[in-house]
Amino acid sequence: MTDPNIRKFTFGKPFPTGAVIRDVPETAHLPYLTVSEDGSLSMSLAPETILYGLGPTVRGLNKRGWLYESANRDDSQHTEEKHALYGSHNFLIVDGPARFALFLDTPGWVVWDLGYTDSDRISITADDGFTLYLWEAETLPELVRGLRVLTGAPYVPPLWAFGFNQSRWGYRDENDLREVIRRYRELDMPLDMVSLDLDYMEGCRDFTVSRERFPDFADFNRELAGEGIHMVPIVDAALKADEAWPVYRECLEKGFFCRKEDGSPFFVGVWPGKCVLPDFADPEAAAWFGRQYRALTDAGVRGFWNDMNEPAIFYSEDCLREVFEKIRTFQDRDLDLDSFFEMRNLFGSLSHRDAYLRDYFHTVGGERIRGDKLRNIYGTRMTEAAAKALKEQLPDERVLLFSRSSYIGLHRSAGIWYGDNRSWWSHLKWNVAQAAAAGMSGFLYSGADIGGFGGDATGDLALRWLAFGIFSPLFRNHSIRGSRPQEFWRFGREEAFRGVLKLRYALLPFIYSEFVKAALSGGMYFLPLSFVFSDARSRRVEDQLMIGEGVMTAPVCEQNADGRFVYLPEPMRLFRMRSPKDFDTELLPAGDHFLSCTLNEVLVFLRKGYCLPLAETDGVRNSRDVDFSRLSALKYDEAPVSYTLYDDGGVRSELSLEKYGRTLVF
Amino acid sequence: MTDPNIRKFTFGKPFPTGAVIRDVPETAHLPYLTVSEDGSLSMSLAPETILYGLGPTVRGLNKRGWLYESANRDDSQHTEEKHALYGSHNFLIVDGPARFALFLDTPGWVVWDLGYTDSDRISITADDGFTLYLWEAETLPELVRGLRVLTGAPYVPPLWAFGFNQSRWGYRDENDLREVIRRYRELDMPLDMVSLDLDYMEGCRDFTVSRERFPDFADFNRELAGEGIHMVPIVDAALKADEAWPVYRECLEKGFFCRKEDGSPFFVGVWPGKCVLPDFADPEAAAWFGRQYRALTDAGVRGFWNDMNEPAIFYSEDCLREVFEKIRTFQDRDLDLDSFFEMRNLFGSLSHRDAYLRDYFHTVGGERIRGDKLRNIYGTRMTEAAAKALKEQLPDERVLLFSRSSYIGLHRSAGIWYGDNRSWWSHLKWNVAQAAAAGMSGFLYSGADIGGFGGDATGDLALRWLAFGIFSPLFRNHSIRGSRPQEFWRFGREEAFRGVLKLRYALLPFIYSEFVKAALSGGMYFLPLSFVFSDARSRRVEDQLMIGEGVMTAPVCEQNADGRFVYLPEPMRLFRMRSPKDFDTELLPAGDHFLSCTLNEVLVFLRKGYCLPLAETDGVRNSRDVDFSRLSALKYDEAPVSYTLYDDGGVRSELSLEKYGRTLVF
Repeated sequence: MTDPNIRKFTFGKPFPTGAVIRDVPETAHLPYLTVSEDGSLSMSLAPETILYGLGPTVRGLNKRGWLYESANRDDSQHTEEKHALYGSHNFLIVDGPARFALFLDTPGWVVWDLGYTDSDRISITADDGFTLYLWEAETLPELVRGLRVLTGAPYVPPLWAFGFNQSRWGYRDENDLREVIRRYRELDMPLDMVSLDLDYMEGCRDFTVSRERFPDFADFNRELAGEGIHMVPIVDAALKADEAWPVYRECLEKGFFCRKEDGSPFFVGVWPGKCVLPDFADPEAAAWFGRQYRALTDAGVRGFWNDMNEPAIFYSEDCLREVFEKIRTFQDRDLDLDSFFEMRNLFGSLSHRDAYLRDYFHTVGGERIRGDKLRNIYGTRMTEAAAKALKEQLPDERVLLFSRSSYIGLHRSAGIWYGDNRSWWSHLKWNVAQAAAAGMSGFLYSGADIGGFGGDATGDLALRWLAFGIFSPLFRNHSIRGSRPQEFWRFGREEAFRGVLKLRYALLPFIYSEFVKAALSGGMYFLPLSFVFSDARSRRVEDQLMIGEGVMTAPVCEQNADGRFVYLPEPMRLFRMRSPKDFDTELLPAGDHFLSCTLNEVLVFLRKGYCLPLAETDGVRNSRDVDFSRLSALKYDEAPVSYTLYDDGGVRSELSLEKYGRTLVF
Repeated sequence: MTDPNIRKFTFGKPFPTGAVIRDVPETAHLPYLTVSEDGSLSMSLAPETILYGLGPTVRGLNKRGWLYESANRDDSQHTEEKHALYGSHNFLIVDGPARFALFLDTPGWVVWDLGYTDSDRISITADDGFTLYLWEAETLPELVRGLRVLTGAPYVPPLWAFGFNQSRWGYRDENDLREVIRRYRELDMPLDMVSLDLDYMEGCRDFTVSRERFPDFADFNRELAGEGIHMVPIVDAALKADEAWPVYRECLEKGFFCRKEDGSPFFVGVWPGKCVLPDFADPEAAAWFGRQYRALTDAGVRGFWNDMNEPAIFYSEDCLREVFEKIRTFQDRDLDLDSFFEMRNLFGSLSHRDAYLRDYFHTVGGERIRGDKLRNIYGTRMTEAAAKALKEQLPDERVLLFSRSSYIGLHRSAGIWYGDNRSWWSHLKWNVAQAAAAGMSGFLYSGADIGGFGGDATGDLALRWLAFGIFSPLFRNHSIRGSRPQEFWRFGREEAFRGVLKLRYALLPFIYSEFVKAALSGGMYFLPLSFVFSDARSRRVEDQLMIGEGVMTAPVCEQNADGRFVYLPEPMRLFRMRSPKDFDTELLPAGDHFLSCTLNEVLVFLRKGYCLPLAETDGVRNSRDVDFSRLSALKYDEAPVSYTLYDDGGVRSELSLEKYGRTLVF
């Protein structure tokens, strides 16, 4: 792999995000893009040009035809009309007559008009100064490798983090968790992790554990660890403004909070009620926050998810007061067309206002910087602080860490999940595009909440989603409190769920190996067909993904469908898998196929010259039980095939991963 | 056509909805369904059973796997997780080893658990007494004909109502409308109607016209009529509580309003502010409301849309007062996880509460009946009253009338539109299923807002939606105020939009004829493939529709797709149409095809033995200009094909339509 010729252009005075780790010399001539008077960058698009990138957000893989914003935002209604979700991945691939990629480095707001206003034109506008990196390459994977050269290699979690993670906002106490684990065990459904949502804390205070619900957390952690189950507790960004709580007192005393213009704490409402936002842009404050994780690592916890770090703000204290004053003016009025909605919006629009970000300030090297100027790296700084602290606290262990909010650069330290999706078939379909887009940005360890977080899942949706989810590095079933229970044993069809879950564990050596290979090579784990095949049809396929170069999956994303259309750019062998051992197979010619796929089946396709190694799953309860030394393999034909396998081998550090590759022949 | 053997079963004391016009004798034995103790009806489903019906609502054609409610509701967020929209069409087809249909006649709430709780089980639960009609048939179309035998033949609007209708909430005055019409004319894009939303009224008072914005409405109507353009004003259900307004005073004096338990008016907030709900269940009140349309028919108006008639209630006066009292208790509190959302919901959940329906009463024959008991026929009674009055006011004319809220039975008097959809690709796709489902219930004249009502459309969405919309009997582009302007000349690509719009007008003789044939025969205009073909694959196709028996369309519903998969149950001739005269064609064998379809193309398929008649469109400005006597035809092959054409021929009454059919040979 030769380094791409990355060029750098600086506009204004960009705040250093830390995303770029490579020193790139500044050059003068900006190709492709025109800089207009208002500072926006634009170019015209050929009809056939496809745009990739921007990380996991709404809509399809090809981002053309919509307006996106880099504006990390807690938004639980992921509909087609949204412009931004939780992460800002300012990485765009232009795949047309010109083929190039760009990374626009700024922690502030960016508007990406990708053929929205004018279908044949891109226009990119940033609020603040930015550094633009631009490079060309012959192929799409090489363009992605360019971003890795620039921003570094991805985070690789420990092997157990590739197991199955059962989560729900609503597991209240030890006994709830024991019961969930017991049921999975009883039904011979493997399980590696249980996530803990807000419920485990004492009044939503970070780094506390409810004594009532978890009388001895360390002991309970040991109990689960003995069964090979990891607890993965949530950590939220905001800290409860509770003077009786030492963590808050220390935060106040040390001044580690975001401030209003007058220097006083900027109070906001989040889950715990009145809170302060730690000033993660201040390295000392960030380090202090990271040290707090010790309260949980000391109890044996080795995995975390960082949430509400866009930052999520339900209301600011000041604004809530204004709303209460304003609402009075509507009382006893005849509320018509305009005034009624104005009134209703007073409360309806209280949460996650962009305006809040202009009401508080960070302190960086003695300088005040307004919240909106650093909005897109707030959660990244939080999670980087956690990653750094966890390395210090646990120097000999790899830990699991994933975040909701993200900015490129964080991919070196943590994974992400795609936030509060819903139990919608359309969100299952988006999951496919999101998985590939997250990987482009470098977040190889990522995933959606399988079955959907909000709303009520049906059994068929859960099973179809599982059939795609088993390929996802982050493999978690999560749901909101009050929704229909969503564990994989809630919907009947236990044999079907068990078969597909076991398939995940049979695939674990393959999934982990492909992940490590992608991480080491600057590649991607999930790839759109166009990243592997060069024919025209492959460029438009958005609902089939390659896993590495040899395996393809094509999930059924429509309710009541008994199969789906699949496009094969070359002959492939189809495996219709109901479990690791129960499948049928056929050789399919290149071209279009309608393939039946019953609810209990997973469509897996294999290219000639590749194989799919499978582990034994009899008696496998979790990833610890998976024997990497006893693999069989599914093959395209009888010819011998070699496969490079990576195993965990007790690897302590991501840097030494490459040592653990070995070539098997099947 | 022989009449199906319809059986009737009465449970409790159902309120007469008027939906059924055929006298059916009561029988004792209920086949297929089991009545359980709580009165719910249930049956188990074979794996292959498909469920059709329930009218235009969320999700696909096959209603299996979700829980639906018959609960007419104004809900502008049509997401997959919703259970009810604006209409209650209690018609269900069970297409499995047993093939039968049922109509459950009640104006109250019904829950249809169609494999939601248990994927292999139906359970139907009604709040109140109901009459169940059940019948079997050999084919799906015959099952639909059974419903027509039971509930009567569909409404057929005048020919001009099949032209193009441009609408927007936000056309403020005469000049706005003139400009819209001028632009369509200038660009040689045909147009028959402009809808008027709230803007035309004086302070949202029904039957008033703003003198400021329309100084002489009758004169303006004449001006547009001279250009062949019909104005189609909106009429809302609720009446502004304005003592200075004679219509309200008369409503009060005559007691034609819905009442609280104490007999006083039930005041609600809707667009005009404080309102009363006319008591459409009271025949005198309904007739009085119908007479008010004369204010507009006298000005020359011949088309109306009835809105907000679920009924939509933004708030009740009493409840708003309670909310204002309650909100005070949240002031100056530390709002945590639970209390914050409780507070926000006070206003957020103020609109369209089901509870409101239990707070008011109708007066029917001197008897008080609570609002929720008649909820699903409220809008139907309103629109039936309008239809009856319009017949009296305009005995020699067919008028255009369509409603948002509906119940089966209304299909004899009016059309419907599918309410406040959004500019989402998923809503384009739903439009396909909704169109077929509405037709099953008898609402042949129906359609979705093309381009989407809420949210911002892009040009490609508008064009793809138009490519399906040109086949829709109700053919309207409508959008919400504040959204991106959505007229078909707003997005560039004028030639493409013009070509497809002209195709609609070339198809007008075909569309009108197929519509009349469906109306006369008890059939459907849009048909799922399974209603025409009997192969197994056709049963699962949800995104291709037949129009009559000979023509099929297959819209592209994915952004950035350059084509789509199409399944052909038999060989068909494809026409890739860019305009009535610009197309290419190829003969396709039965089976699966990936067919390219650029943004300016419409995929039309023709079966052997059928033809597609086309009118001349040069110089055609509206439906008046379409010459039914000069038709050419697209054909499968050279063999002569006969086609039964219906033309308007100045038909005054739907009852005489059959006289106007004549057979042409192409």
